[in-house]
Amino acid sequence: MTENFRFDLSATDGAARAGLIATPRGDIRTPAFMPVGTAATVKAMHPERVKALGADIVLANTYHLMLRPGAERIAQLGGLHRFMNWPGPILTDSGGFQVMSLAKLRKLDENGVTFQSHIDGARHVLTPERSMEIQHLLGADIQMQFDECVRLPCSDAEAGRAMELSLRWADRSKAAFVRKPGRALFGIVQGGASEALRLESARALAGMDFHGLALGGLAVGEPQEVMLAMIDCTVSELPADKPRYLMGVGSPDDLIESVKRGIDMFDCVMPTRAGRHGLAYTSAGKVNLRNARHADDPAPLDAESANAVTRTYSRAYLHHLIKAGEILGMMLLTEINLAYYQELMAGMRAAIAAGEFARFAAQTKEGWARGETRE
Amino acid sequence: MTENFRFDLSATDGAARAGLIATPRGDIRTPAFMPVGTAATVKAMHPERVKALGADIVLANTYHLMLRPGAERIAQLGGLHRFMNWPGPILTDSGGFQVMSLAKLRKLDENGVTFQSHIDGARHVLTPERSMEIQHLLGADIQMQFDECVRLPCSDAEAGRAMELSLRWADRSKAAFVRKPGRALFGIVQGGASEALRLESARALAGMDFHGLALGGLAVGEPQEVMLAMIDCTVSELPADKPRYLMGVGSPDDLIESVKRGIDMFDCVMPTRAGRHGLAYTSAGKVNLRNARHADDPAPLDAESANAVTRTYSRAYLHHLIKAGEILGMMLLTEINLAYYQELMAGMRAAIAAGEFARFAAQTKEGWARGETRE
Repeated sequence: MTENFRFDLSATDGAARAGLIATPRGDIRTPAFMPVGTAATVKAMHPERVKALGADIVLANTYHLMLRPGAERIAQLGGLHRFMNWPGPILTDSGGFQVMSLAKLRKLDENGVTFQSHIDGARHVLTPERSMEIQHLLGADIQMQFDECVRLPCSDAEAGRAMELSLRWADRSKAAFVRKPGRALFGIVQGGASEALRLESARALAGMDFHGLALGGLAVGEPQEVMLAMIDCTVSELPADKPRYLMGVGSPDDLIESVKRGIDMFDCVMPTRAGRHGLAYTSAGKVNLRNARHADDPAPLDAESANAVTRTYSRAYLHHLIKAGEILGMMLLTEINLAYYQELMAGMRAAIAAGEFARFAAQTKEGWARGETRE
Repeated sequence: MTENFRFDLSATDGAARAGLIATPRGDIRTPAFMPVGTAATVKAMHPERVKALGADIVLANTYHLMLRPGAERIAQLGGLHRFMNWPGPILTDSGGFQVMSLAKLRKLDENGVTFQSHIDGARHVLTPERSMEIQHLLGADIQMQFDECVRLPCSDAEAGRAMELSLRWADRSKAAFVRKPGRALFGIVQGGASEALRLESARALAGMDFHGLALGGLAVGEPQEVMLAMIDCTVSELPADKPRYLMGVGSPDDLIESVKRGIDMFDCVMPTRAGRHGLAYTSAGKVNLRNARHADDPAPLDAESANAVTRTYSRAYLHHLIKAGEILGMMLLTEINLAYYQELMAGMRAAIAAGEFARFAAQTKEGWARGETRE
């Protein structure tokens, strides 16, 4: 058992990197996609299936878990891994993003954020110290500094203020982080859509000896080219020997474009949320199963898929389940999407190792663009 | 592969019977509990898991499937087994019960029932001939005669009228049934809560050479003792060499009391519906996971269960999932309940074979009555 958190690069292809994060709870192959287990469950999925589809690590949300069922309760019950029956590595976010997007009556100052729960209106305070305490109580393997995440577009002045506050909170998060063998703390680059601010944030964090660095405050409404520009101007400042995590991203195309630029880790609700709403991600692009043209189609979404669910159930059946509001429809499409995302990550890892990332990316995009001949 | 529908009794213990129904699609061990797959899915369950928990056969609803996605469509897609990825035997009901309980603006006459769909208000007609045609299009292994099911309590005059109509419809159903090797047609005893009417119905149907006989119109609001009295007065009139199916029943206690009286087959939404609402069936009785007393309880529902889900997930986690409205909570509790129901059926089958049904029934009921020492 590896007692320490370790990151080893095994191959590069241009800026794209393939490697391995070793943790006491298991290895994480990078580039890695982390399914989102918001409230201690990857929605509509048995944890064994999440693992079987290729996930080495899942993400859970500090904000949701602190409100319900509570971090102290989960600690009392033996920690988040046992609670949700996921023995592998878990990354928790800091709660900052959800406080901004979900909580009511937020009040932010130097100390932290006071807010009301979106569930029952109860008042809560989240500070760098409390965020780290919660992540420690949950027992997360990879923990994130507490930060302030602004919505885009926003003024550079506002983005700069939030970025500087996040740097001071990075210091406090580091001081409050409970060190244990194999546990890691990541800093988060902020700076809105300003290259100068992003650069300043990245340089400051690079000197702070975090175990890894994340790009935060992206995929929050800006066009893809803005996001990619922010990666481009930041990534060279990030230490090459530490994992780079692009938070909350993204679409299959976002993943390819970001891996190409040197990103190692991702999380996103897109495959799971889209699945619950009848949208499938496939090698031939997105397929909306709600569409009536699927009602009589006996073909599966992908007869060549390595995933049995993807190649077994007909579009007609998936269409029927989604139209009828059946839970099984959400279960099957969530699995189909997570399988496709993990297949895409595995494909990128293999392509980087073979020095064929550009060809893999082009072929994959051609498949999406070609769409389905049946359509 | 058995080409014919065959029922063999292997053991009796008092009136209780254990046996096997052989069909080309697989054997059905009796007494059997059939999970309900209303709209071509046992709600919140992968079909493989339904099978793995011990189900040899599932039920699907003619009424639901004729409205959505349509029987002709399912036939075009290769039949219900392929559609829902359930290769084993399927029993379909006749649609009569749901027309009475779900449809709008019903008009019943000698010919059949005209009604409006509860989904889109479209007008439909269901007759014995159309019900048999639909069940044939679906490809059901066991098909049910079209009948009229009255709600209890009702007058004997009303129950008698519906029973006599159902007998005439039994004749028409038999004439319309599409015979194929291994396919079976069951008649349905009606007669409300009147012993005389039930007896008359059972005697008439017993002489009609059905492959099996069902008791319908029970578990529709009457006390358990009324239902059991109706079984008692009917069962001796039913041919001993044909399976007896009590439709829509029931609670674990209903199952024991009915098997004790000679019933071989059951279906009920109770385990699946209760599971989606946070109620678990266990060897220590019913457990309501919504109750706050489970919030900090690290114990699983049954540490001794043969089913991994039942012995793995803590009550605290199940409570959390149900409170948070998480789909995984419905998935896990549905599985826990179906596992308990199948375990109960397997226990009864073994007890009958060993001549110990009375002891098994008493011990099982003691377990429910004792409840949980933890409570």
